[in-house]
Amino acid sequence: MLSMERTRKLEIATASVRKFAQVGSTSRAANLLTKFRAADIVVIVEGLGSTDRLGVWKGLRELDSRLASDVLTEMPDKLATSILTQLSPSDVGAVLRSVPVDDAAHLVSLLPDELVDDLREDEDQEKTISPELAGHLAYAEETAGRLMTTNLLALPEQMTVGEATRSLQERADQFEMVFYLYVVDDRRHLVGVLSLRQLLLNPSSTPLRRIMADDVIRVRTHADQEEVAQMIARYNLLAVPVVDDENRLVGLITVDDAIDVLREEATEDIYALAGVAVEERIGGSPIRSIRLRLPWIYVNLLTATLSVTVIHLFEGTIAEVVALATLMPIASGMGGNAATQALTVVVRGLAMGEMSGTSNARVLAKEVIVGLGLGVGAGLAGALIAAWWFGNPVLGLLLGLALLVNMIVAAVAGTAVPLGLRGLGLDPAAGASVFVTACTDMTGFAAFLGLATMFLSYLK
Amino acid sequence: MLSMERTRKLEIATASVRKFAQVGSTSRAANLLTKFRAADIVVIVEGLGSTDRLGVWKGLRELDSRLASDVLTEMPDKLATSILTQLSPSDVGAVLRSVPVDDAAHLVSLLPDELVDDLREDEDQEKTISPELAGHLAYAEETAGRLMTTNLLALPEQMTVGEATRSLQERADQFEMVFYLYVVDDRRHLVGVLSLRQLLLNPSSTPLRRIMADDVIRVRTHADQEEVAQMIARYNLLAVPVVDDENRLVGLITVDDAIDVLREEATEDIYALAGVAVEERIGGSPIRSIRLRLPWIYVNLLTATLSVTVIHLFEGTIAEVVALATLMPIASGMGGNAATQALTVVVRGLAMGEMSGTSNARVLAKEVIVGLGLGVGAGLAGALIAAWWFGNPVLGLLLGLALLVNMIVAAVAGTAVPLGLRGLGLDPAAGASVFVTACTDMTGFAAFLGLATMFLSYLK
Repeated sequence: MLSMERTRKLEIATASVRKFAQVGSTSRAANLLTKFRAADIVVIVEGLGSTDRLGVWKGLRELDSRLASDVLTEMPDKLATSILTQLSPSDVGAVLRSVPVDDAAHLVSLLPDELVDDLREDEDQEKTISPELAGHLAYAEETAGRLMTTNLLALPEQMTVGEATRSLQERADQFEMVFYLYVVDDRRHLVGVLSLRQLLLNPSSTPLRRIMADDVIRVRTHADQEEVAQMIARYNLLAVPVVDDENRLVGLITVDDAIDVLREEATEDIYALAGVAVEERIGGSPIRSIRLRLPWIYVNLLTATLSVTVIHLFEGTIAEVVALATLMPIASGMGGNAATQALTVVVRGLAMGEMSGTSNARVLAKEVIVGLGLGVGAGLAGALIAAWWFGNPVLGLLLGLALLVNMIVAAVAGTAVPLGLRGLGLDPAAGASVFVTACTDMTGFAAFLGLATMFLSYLK
Repeated sequence: MLSMERTRKLEIATASVRKFAQVGSTSRAANLLTKFRAADIVVIVEGLGSTDRLGVWKGLRELDSRLASDVLTEMPDKLATSILTQLSPSDVGAVLRSVPVDDAAHLVSLLPDELVDDLREDEDQEKTISPELAGHLAYAEETAGRLMTTNLLALPEQMTVGEATRSLQERADQFEMVFYLYVVDDRRHLVGVLSLRQLLLNPSSTPLRRIMADDVIRVRTHADQEEVAQMIARYNLLAVPVVDDENRLVGLITVDDAIDVLREEATEDIYALAGVAVEERIGGSPIRSIRLRLPWIYVNLLTATLSVTVIHLFEGTIAEVVALATLMPIASGMGGNAATQALTVVVRGLAMGEMSGTSNARVLAKEVIVGLGLGVGAGLAGALIAAWWFGNPVLGLLLGLALLVNMIVAAVAGTAVPLGLRGLGLDPAAGASVFVTACTDMTGFAAFLGLATMFLSYLK
């Protein structure tokens, strides 16, 4: 299916499903959906009004409960949450039992705590939170343990190629995606890996031990999911095995999950730099967007109010030389730009795993030199513009100096804040831009107006 | 290899390789490198000084020319370019001939035009730009045609499972990654797909036609690489086949290339929003960073100068009520924040392919409502702060009104600019933030100072 055709096809399907749903024929709507892949059904369901979504999804579940569960696990979290919370506890239980344990754990993480407690306590629901699912939920969120699928085929090292092929043929339905085969010793320690292709290419009597690679790239259960995803990306892997602290094979993380993690983390970074909540989406409701964005706007209003108190201190000077009021946003704004540049390079560099082999001190030193260079460049240009505009070289010089000072402060703040947040184990992007721009605003105003106050006699 | 261990191991290796290189034993340095994977060697080589890099890479090529070529294709573009341009034309030719045609095309795109012309014209080098490579280079950059590998196994639909398995066993070395097998008719039209696993699981007499899926997700050669990558991500694919306009199978794009495209595009977006050039990296030289960032700083200085001319028009008003100078950065800055939020949600929404089923007009309408909501929220708070601070309710009211106006302008600019750029076939993120903030700065100053001039008598 080509991309434009696909978009068109999905639009038509969305319109038809909506029409069916609105006249109450959810079964016809659901019937149409079964002709699509889960990822496409998600797009169609997203295009429906919130009242139709639940009905259509329930209709789909009656026709094909496996597909309905797949659709739920592939949905954006917000949508999945809204459907799950409208189901009865026993329906939620049925969904959780019908999906692989890693998907179940993810869905449980979306549920309100009370409902999870109900599911745990209810005797009839005992099997919903199975020991396996409970074990999965015991791993911290955003770790390899939480992300992995436990549904994998591990082959004993004594096996031959022929035995492995038969074992695979017998149990093939149970495994979603098989491309690497992991080899374990008799205590389930991970000792090697081979590809499906090697099974095809080697004589059936060959022992796996002879053809497997023993230098297996692996991750521990408590590894951060972003690190795991970066590793999969860096080594061009299709999957990476997850081991416990004793090197026992416990799970598998596939490349499709790694892609989701990388995209999610990129979105989080982009949003954090702009002060947008992770839950925001282009198609969401305006009320929700206002609720999500207003707190950030208030935080910014607060910091803006704090930084303009600096101007308030110099109102006497401004009253004498009004040109200062005109020029001061240049002194503050250019620092903000330079700080955003440094901040972005550092945040993205951390996200792309480019910090290996470079220390914090070296990055900071580099950015200070860059700040100095940009400060000289912007300072000279700013000085010339102001001197020419107001016909006063001293005014130009003062703006130039303020720009130089502020660009260096911008470099330090734009680098130190994300590195510091990360050093504290926090997200390097979150909230960084508000601190950093408050810093450059204050410095810009203080440096320019302070210098102007010192040399006031040359400005009048 | 676990992640922390790996970082440590690579640091130690980098230090050893550097030491060997500095005493001139590039062969010992290279020998150490051969113990690592290509992706790790890239990290080690990145950690060396620029003078050592070329020597170490040449040493590696003498020991293992295939590995050296892999290292070159996996390097960041900047590094690969610096090594390639220091090689003799015949060495460049040797590298190009030793890698798959898609990698060769990528390396050619990094070379200066003169060198490429030399390679094309030189009789001895005739085979360097082979007809196959020339054909590959004919596809536009950033399209599926340019990204695809042409090195794939297509099976005729008349084949049986047994024949396919034998055919695969005979030619296995020629193909890098095989997980899907594509089935073509006798004019090479793509008609179906099956997985390697299905070959293992079906009796050898089964015709491929009977077990293949015929609804194959595919892309055309001229499809944008970002769309292709989004498709691979959405459908959790390991690869997607590329067809020409007549539906003939011509290539294959694998998930590892899709990951690189998605990360590259995310970086481009994050950088574009902050005014950072795509070539910037956290570990680059400060001089280079200054050269890359200064033009953007100058563009911003120019737009800042243009927006403060608005203030210049109202200097008379400011001279009478200096409190206006203190408060005006609030009116402009809050608009900038709101615009950045809208801009970011739209840019990321476009990049994530979330616009399907939503029209430009609907997104704009939503953002205007959000702008109105944020304007009322910020306007009320701003009005109260200003009225209380300066003890003047009219001053508060004017700041509140200016905030309301500016938040709506911010919503329109933050949405219309990226959508408009995309409508013109340009990158929605590139340069958007500078236009948008210039817009909100001017509106903020004009609305607040204009209103103040109209109601000046209430402010004194």
